[in-house]
Amino acid sequence: MSVLNKATFNPRVVSAEYAVRGAIVLRSNEYQKQLAAGAELPFDKIIPCNIGNPQILGQKPIHFHREVLALVNVPGLVDHPEAPSIFKEDAIARAKHYLAKIPGGTGAYGHSKGHEVIRHEVCDFLERRDGYPADPETIFLTDGASQAVQGILRALIRDENDGILVPIPQYPLYSATIAMNGGSLCGYYLDEAASWGTSTDELKRAIEAGREAGKEVRALVVINPGNPTGQCLSENNMRDIVQICKDEKLVLMADEVYQENVYTEDKHFVSFKKVLKDMGPDFDDVELASFHSTSKGFTGECGRRGGYMELVNFTAEAMEQFYKMVSVNLCSNIEGQLMVGMMTNPPVEGDASYESYISQRDGVLESLKRRALKLVAAFNELEGVTCNAAEGAMYTFPKITVPEKACEEAKERGMAPDAFYATALLDATGIVVVPGSGFGQEDGTYHFRSTILPPEEAIDEVIEKTSKFHAEFMDKYR
Amino acid sequence: MSVLNKATFNPRVVSAEYAVRGAIVLRSNEYQKQLAAGAELPFDKIIPCNIGNPQILGQKPIHFHREVLALVNVPGLVDHPEAPSIFKEDAIARAKHYLAKIPGGTGAYGHSKGHEVIRHEVCDFLERRDGYPADPETIFLTDGASQAVQGILRALIRDENDGILVPIPQYPLYSATIAMNGGSLCGYYLDEAASWGTSTDELKRAIEAGREAGKEVRALVVINPGNPTGQCLSENNMRDIVQICKDEKLVLMADEVYQENVYTEDKHFVSFKKVLKDMGPDFDDVELASFHSTSKGFTGECGRRGGYMELVNFTAEAMEQFYKMVSVNLCSNIEGQLMVGMMTNPPVEGDASYESYISQRDGVLESLKRRALKLVAAFNELEGVTCNAAEGAMYTFPKITVPEKACEEAKERGMAPDAFYATALLDATGIVVVPGSGFGQEDGTYHFRSTILPPEEAIDEVIEKTSKFHAEFMDKYR
Repeated sequence: MSVLNKATFNPRVVSAEYAVRGAIVLRSNEYQKQLAAGAELPFDKIIPCNIGNPQILGQKPIHFHREVLALVNVPGLVDHPEAPSIFKEDAIARAKHYLAKIPGGTGAYGHSKGHEVIRHEVCDFLERRDGYPADPETIFLTDGASQAVQGILRALIRDENDGILVPIPQYPLYSATIAMNGGSLCGYYLDEAASWGTSTDELKRAIEAGREAGKEVRALVVINPGNPTGQCLSENNMRDIVQICKDEKLVLMADEVYQENVYTEDKHFVSFKKVLKDMGPDFDDVELASFHSTSKGFTGECGRRGGYMELVNFTAEAMEQFYKMVSVNLCSNIEGQLMVGMMTNPPVEGDASYESYISQRDGVLESLKRRALKLVAAFNELEGVTCNAAEGAMYTFPKITVPEKACEEAKERGMAPDAFYATALLDATGIVVVPGSGFGQEDGTYHFRSTILPPEEAIDEVIEKTSKFHAEFMDKYR
Repeated sequence: MSVLNKATFNPRVVSAEYAVRGAIVLRSNEYQKQLAAGAELPFDKIIPCNIGNPQILGQKPIHFHREVLALVNVPGLVDHPEAPSIFKEDAIARAKHYLAKIPGGTGAYGHSKGHEVIRHEVCDFLERRDGYPADPETIFLTDGASQAVQGILRALIRDENDGILVPIPQYPLYSATIAMNGGSLCGYYLDEAASWGTSTDELKRAIEAGREAGKEVRALVVINPGNPTGQCLSENNMRDIVQICKDEKLVLMADEVYQENVYTEDKHFVSFKKVLKDMGPDFDDVELASFHSTSKGFTGECGRRGGYMELVNFTAEAMEQFYKMVSVNLCSNIEGQLMVGMMTNPPVEGDASYESYISQRDGVLESLKRRALKLVAAFNELEGVTCNAAEGAMYTFPKITVPEKACEEAKERGMAPDAFYATALLDATGIVVVPGSGFGQEDGTYHFRSTILPPEEAIDEVIEKTSKFHAEFMDKYR
C-alpha cells in the first residue's frame, strides 16, 4: 500500500493541466527516441513548435552576454594574459564590475530579492523605457517569470472563493497555478474577430459572473503581447484596464515577457507601469505586478531561468510578506540574475561589443518578423483555417475547422477535436504543436498554437508538411 | 484601499516563519550599509554565520567545475586556438561532451526532469555510492534541494489534517513550507543528551500524538547529517526509521545534502537508499525521496541553485503527477544541472584536473573539520554553555543559559530569549547567528546556530569576540 497514488495525491495538483508539456509532447519524445534508434517513421526528425525555446531551434545567444558569464565564473580569468585574445574588452570590464559588486561571486547565495547591482540595472532600464523612476526595493529577481507569477498567485489565493481573471485563450501557467493553489479561474474571452482584443464589456461581464458565483475577484491577468494569441494592446485599451482595476479593486498582473517581440509597423509595446503612471497620482493605489524574462525577446536564454518582477503600489505589509516568501528559496540562481543585468544593460555605442550586439539583435527580430508573416499567410491559405496576424510574441494561433467525422473519432478516443488534429499532425509530419484546448477557447472553436521559431529554411518545410497533412486530413474526414 | 495587506494576504504565507533570513539578518544588513557609509560601530565588519554560504566567506570554487561552465557558455570556445592556454584538457573534453548531449546548449529549456546526460551521471554516482542500480527516470534535477523539498510537501499536503513528522530542532524550510501549504507539522524531538539522536520511542510518540490530534500522518523528514544539529545517524538507527515508515505508511523524506560533510573518524555517511535496499524486497513499498544539492559538501556552489532528488518506490501514478508539477516550471536552470553533473562525476585519476580537484576537496574538508572542532571546544568553555560535537554538516548548535533578568528584558521587548541574546551578540560584535527559536527546541532551553564557515584565521576572531561578549552579557544580567 503506497502513500501516494492518484487518489491520495494533493487533488489540487491532480486537477492541474499543462498542455505545453503534455501528452503530445510526451508522444513526440517517444518518436525522438525511436528515430535515434534508427526506426523508420513517416518523418526523419521532430520539429518542436510547441514551446517558445529559440536556442533549441538554432537561435544563437548574444555573444557579449555569454562572454561575461564565462569571465565571472573562472577565478582569475579577467586578469589572465590570454583573456584579451578571446574576450572583448567591454565583456572583461563588465565581468570585473560584477565581481566587484557581487560578494562571493556566482557561487554564493545573494540577497533574496537578487543582487543590488542587478536590481539597479533593471531600474535604470525601466526609467529609460517608461520615463518614470523605479525603486530597486520593488524589484525581485526570480528563476524565470514563471516563479514570479506563481508567487503572486500564492499571495492572492486563500481558498476556492478567491477568483483570478485570466484571458481565454491563456498561457496554461496561469490555469495550472490557480488550480494548484486551490483558487478559481474567472475567464474573460479575447475577441478573435477583433484581433484578439480585450473589451471592457467582456471584462465587466467576467467580473460580474465571478461575483455571482460567490467569488471574491482579486486580480486581473493581462498578457501583452499575447500568448498564445500574439495581439499587442493599444494604450487606450490599457487605460481602460487600469481604470477597471481601480474601480473593482483588482491587482493587475501584467505578463510583459514578450515586450521586445513586436512585429507590426503601426504598433509598439507600452508597459502597464507607464500607462498607470501617466494616469496620475489618483492611480497610486492600483497594485501592479509586472513580469519580464530573459527567455524571450531576442535574448532567448530560456535555460538560464532569469527574470524579474516589479511590484508597484503594494503596501509595506505586502512587500514584507513577498520578501519572506522569496527568502524561503534563499535566492534565484545568480547567472540568471546576471543575464537579467545584461539584458537590461546591454553594450552601448562605442563599446567593443556594440556592433555585434546590434547586428545579432536586429537579425533575430527581423527574421522572427519574416517568419511570423510567412506562417500566418500560409495558415490562411488552408481550407477552413483563419489566422490573425501575430502582432507580437512568438506564436501563431490559427482557428481550424475540424470536420464532423473527425470530431466523432476524437470523441471515441476521449480526446478534444483539436488534440486529435494535433496528434495526427505529429504522427504524419513530426511537427509538434499544442492544441487550442490546452489554452482555452470559445466553445465549439478549435485552434492550435505553433511557435514561429523554426529557422527560416525550416519554416518552408513546416508550411509544406502542414499544408500537405491538412489537405489529407480534411479529405479523409470530409 | 489595497487588495493585499497583512489581513488579506494568504494567511498560510503570513503564518510561515524563516529565521535564517529573518529579523536579525535584516538588522545586520542595515549595519552593513552603515559601515559602508563610514559609520562608527562597535565592530568594523559583519561576519555572517547565519547561513551555510561557504563562498561568501572565501571558500574557493572547484576550478574544474568553473572551467567547464565557462567553456559550454561561449559558442566556439572549446575549439578556440587559445583555449588550451587557459583551460585544462579534461575540462575542454567535458564541455564538448555536454555540448554534444545538450540540445540547444545552456540557453535552451531542457527536459522538465533535467537533461538525460546529467541524470545518467547522477545514477552512476548513486550506484558507486550505494551498490544498487538507480534509474534516470526517478531522478529530478531541481533548482537546489529546497525546490525539491517544496514539491514533495506540496504533493503530500491536502489540508490541515495532513501531518508531516519533522525533527525538532529542524531546518525552517520544512516548517515554512508546511505552513505555506496549510498542513500540520508534527514535531519529534532529537535528544540533545544523546548527541541529538533520533529515538524510535520518540518517533512513535509523535506519530501517536499527531493521530490523537486528528491528523493523517503522511511523511517523516530526516535530516542526515543534521541541520542545525550536526549529528550523523548510525545504520541501526536508520533501519529502525525505515521500519517505522513501513509499519506506519509514511513517505520517508531524506534530506542528505550534507552527505560529504562528516568530520568524525568513527562515523561515515550511509544513504537511506542503501539502508532501505539492504533491508530487502519486503521494503520495496517504502516510498523514499532523497535530496542532494551542489550548495553544500566541498562544492559549496550555493548561487548555482543546483540539486536533485531521487524518488524510490513511488507509484507510476505519483511519478506522473510529479512530472507534471515540474513541467509547469519548464525546467531547472541548466548550469545548476551541469554543476550537479560535475559534482557527481568529478575528474578521476589520470585526468589533467585530478590533482587540483583532490587538493581542493581535501583542503576544504580538512579545514572544515578543524574549524568545527575549534568552535565546539570554544563554546564549551563559555559559562552556562554546552555544545555537542558537530559530527557533520556545517553548523554548531550550542545550548546557552539565558539569565533570568535577560529573559525578562526579552519578554518586555517581545522577543524570544535566544533571539534577544543573538541580537545583543550582533550589536556588540557584528557576528550574525540564528537563535534556536528559529529551528524549534525543547521548551525552556535556548540555543543558537553558528556556521563553521568563517575562514580559519577568522574563526579565532569569532571565538574571541563571542567569548568577550558572552562574559559581558552574563555579567550584565547575572
